[in-house]
Amino acid sequence: MGLDSDINKIPQHLLESDDPLYAFNKAIVDATAPYCVAYKPNVAFYESQGVEGWLALEKTVAYIRQRYPQQFIIADAKRGDIGNTSEMYARTFFDRMKVDSVTVAPYMGEDSIKPFLIYPERWVILLALTSNKGSLDFQLTEDLEGKRLFEKVLSRSQEWASADQMMYVVGATQGKLFEDVRKIVPDHFLLVPGVGAQGGSLEEVCRYGMNNRCGLLVNSSRNIIYAGSDENFASAAASEARKLQQEMQLMLQKYLG
Amino acid sequence: MGLDSDINKIPQHLLESDDPLYAFNKAIVDATAPYCVAYKPNVAFYESQGVEGWLALEKTVAYIRQRYPQQFIIADAKRGDIGNTSEMYARTFFDRMKVDSVTVAPYMGEDSIKPFLIYPERWVILLALTSNKGSLDFQLTEDLEGKRLFEKVLSRSQEWASADQMMYVVGATQGKLFEDVRKIVPDHFLLVPGVGAQGGSLEEVCRYGMNNRCGLLVNSSRNIIYAGSDENFASAAASEARKLQQEMQLMLQKYLG
Repeated sequence: MGLDSDINKIPQHLLESDDPLYAFNKAIVDATAPYCVAYKPNVAFYESQGVEGWLALEKTVAYIRQRYPQQFIIADAKRGDIGNTSEMYARTFFDRMKVDSVTVAPYMGEDSIKPFLIYPERWVILLALTSNKGSLDFQLTEDLEGKRLFEKVLSRSQEWASADQMMYVVGATQGKLFEDVRKIVPDHFLLVPGVGAQGGSLEEVCRYGMNNRCGLLVNSSRNIIYAGSDENFASAAASEARKLQQEMQLMLQKYLG
Repeated sequence: MGLDSDINKIPQHLLESDDPLYAFNKAIVDATAPYCVAYKPNVAFYESQGVEGWLALEKTVAYIRQRYPQQFIIADAKRGDIGNTSEMYARTFFDRMKVDSVTVAPYMGEDSIKPFLIYPERWVILLALTSNKGSLDFQLTEDLEGKRLFEKVLSRSQEWASADQMMYVVGATQGKLFEDVRKIVPDHFLLVPGVGAQGGSLEEVCRYGMNNRCGLLVNSSRNIIYAGSDENFASAAASEARKLQQEMQLMLQKYLG
């Protein structure tokens, strides 16, 4: 469940609350927790509200952690900087906010990723093949050996951590390319955004991307959290979440028996 | 001037102040403003302090903006996400914080950069060839036509904005590669981190990277802001900043006459 909670899109009546983003998230989490295994707040939506936004994010993470300790929490932050700076980002998300994992951009290479990996039982989720149109600009560039950039990211990054600490972002819109991803990382979990508002097909994702223990964290954000816009927004979200959970259940039966 | 202000490294006596990071930055800015043209807070150092950190960052930017309006302000954030999310990051830094420019990572391509470009008179500073060892991992990968990834980023991104809205990060440690950068972007300004603590040579940067209106924003952070660790930290910083400014002055005379 992506918590891309946008102050301009949440139901109007919540704006009267002291902390509208937190009030929204709390209601959404309570309503959808039975249907999902992980929450993924995208940090941008909170940052754009400045200090109030950061507070709402910290409170949301703390709420999920305390109330639903079995849920996995992903800070979708797409950070990455030189070593001593990535250390700071790791501290932000792992020490302070105590999320389970952070999405990280690979452009700056090994020493920008390593500082996130010194935290035991925390995960780096590295951007490999993203869901957006811009993924075509650089990620598919072939090198002299015919290896595409996303493939190079997948293989090179395996030298930095095992499947116990690393996952990859692969967009649901990438269809058959999941097969190529699985050739390089058969065992890793993949975080798959892009089902829903971005038009990715769950059926294709599962057909080409599932491994023998599932290996997929399929994310939907806008389709679920903005399913309703009035007082019933939480139950509308629950019903969308349940729908996706049931579709995923069918996929698990179909491909894992 | 990089304001990589780390709560664990600033002079001890400042920790008694209400807002130590802001107190540190204010003193550093007042002392160094005569010797520099831009301030570049790296957002990671503030984020790692949570809400207090964001507050210190916002106050620092507002202080520079009000007191030294001629200074250019760069939020070194290395953000980048799918379009509707990058929009949020752009809002954070341009609408709320009112900095002049933001560093952005290119991995996710055009639609992750475009939302930053709708703000007139604001700049995107795109990562091209970074100063760290990890720059070797992917940025130098050659494609089928022998074009390296950083070169592809430089040329492709010119379709998105002109030299009036775009600059590039090229690390001071990259030496002769500045010549290759200049072949593709002769007129753009380059943001050059890595002089100082990271060991980049100012002489090389200027020899290979300067264009006929200079075209370089050379950054130093740790070497300046941590030059002193006691009550005299600000004047120690001023003296390091002056030193670098004078070296740069010599370079300008040498290469621009």
